[in-house]
Amino acid sequence: MSRIPVLEVFGPTIQGEGMVIGRKTMFVRTAGCDYRCAWCDSKFTWDGSERARMLTPDEVWAELVAAGGRRFNHVTISGGNPALIRDPMAELIALLHGHGIRVGLETQGSVWQDWFVEIDDLTISPKPPSSGMDTDWAGLDVMVRRLSDHGVHFSLKVPIFDDTDLDYARRVHRTWPEVPLYLSVGNPDPSAGGDVAAHLLARLAWLVDRVVQDEALNAVHVLPQLHTLLWGNRRGV
Amino acid sequence: MSRIPVLEVFGPTIQGEGMVIGRKTMFVRTAGCDYRCAWCDSKFTWDGSERARMLTPDEVWAELVAAGGRRFNHVTISGGNPALIRDPMAELIALLHGHGIRVGLETQGSVWQDWFVEIDDLTISPKPPSSGMDTDWAGLDVMVRRLSDHGVHFSLKVPIFDDTDLDYARRVHRTWPEVPLYLSVGNPDPSAGGDVAAHLLARLAWLVDRVVQDEALNAVHVLPQLHTLLWGNRRGV
Ligand code: SF4
Ligand code: SF4
Repeated sequence: MSRIPVLEVFGPTIQGEGMVIGRKTMFVRTAGCDYRCAWCDSKFTWDGSERARMLTPDEVWAELVAAGGRRFNHVTISGGNPALIRDPMAELIALLHGHGIRVGLETQGSVWQDWFVEIDDLTISPKPPSSGMDTDWAGLDVMVRRLSDHGVHFSLKVPIFDDTDLDYARRVHRTWPEVPLYLSVGNPDPSAGGDVAAHLLARLAWLVDRVVQDEALNAVHVLPQLHTLLWGNRRGV
Repeated sequence: MSRIPVLEVFGPTIQGEGMVIGRKTMFVRTAGCDYRCAWCDSKFTWDGSERARMLTPDEVWAELVAAGGRRFNHVTISGGNPALIRDPMAELIALLHGHGIRVGLETQGSVWQDWFVEIDDLTISPKPPSSGMDTDWAGLDVMVRRLSDHGVHFSLKVPIFDDTDLDYARRVHRTWPEVPLYLSVGNPDPSAGGDVAAHLLARLAWLVDRVVQDEALNAVHVLPQLHTLLWGNRRGV
């Protein structure tokens, strides 16, 4: 059986952001990313600081059950970029569905996988200028069109750190106005300790104010990262 | 033209809770409620402290445009209980749709209106024991069945103040397992001033912990009231 590079299996907890914010879910975090975002809050998935375990889909399921028992029916797959994994991921998704589990997944949209159309809650999160990464707009357009044609339940999500990022979000919204767009408050220092809630709420108020003023950003959702509000920058919650 | 008792028209802002949390929207708040919840955060809609203005749907639209310009494409109708209003509300909903506006509405589910099936994002929010109100389970069941049959995009939402409320939520979820259930952290003192964010986040952490432990509450969303986190108990934001 093929294997998936896994860094973390944890939960149940709640989804902290985006289209299924608040949803009770388990998390599986895969290793490896083709991006190097300046503010990446999961650098340990690609900077070599932690070693992934190569698990079969059955072993991932066993770890989910060990951690979550019967206390979950939703699993979120995140990374890194889980779209770097082809066949073993398709197997994991099929296995989860076979157990009656709903599957969410987040990827930056740099790589297509045919199993995208099997995901129940798919977030495509293109990275704005503050990330230091470039967006392949043509490639993303092909992806968005395919997902729409297949009737996939998906959304676009852009973290916003500054006004330049907001310009980028406007372009995203103008390009794919029919796709739900989620803007989230960027977490500028994911290694900061202590009480980051007050700071994040102030950033959220700024972002809400910006969006409220802007007629080019009407059909959007503005959301915080609930997990950061609740638990600061701690991992595994 | 028939008239609607209106207490507030404001926005754009973001929806603070429930199934479209974070969505940029305008608010129209109607007067009058058939309930008297102990912790009602909108007592001014029914306690006689404020006088409603009787507005035609055209006048409501004019006020929305005066406040929001072209900076919105979603309107949330709340109360009080907006389901107490029949024909004028049906006219307002049709008028909004005619302008390309998406319409959200929240009601406790004590009264059915045929225009429920026209609502784009409908929240039915039955009130748990801490409210001091009784639930008509049979009536609610007829409502949920009708909404499901009509393919309405709707959810159930229960504010949770204590463990007895959580028992009530379990019963709701057991009764209508196929309907998305949103649990929100109750705001015990909606008249409290100052920084209520820290207190609400502590309550949210409690609720998340409860839900995470509970295999009878798997397909649920746990959410805070974003507007309260952002602006405390201020009105009109
Ligand atoms: S795409 Fe995601 S995981 Fe990859 S570097 Fe950027 S933020 Fe980190
Ligand atoms: S149903 Fe809503 S508006 Fe009516 S009393 Fe209860 S909380 Fe207040």
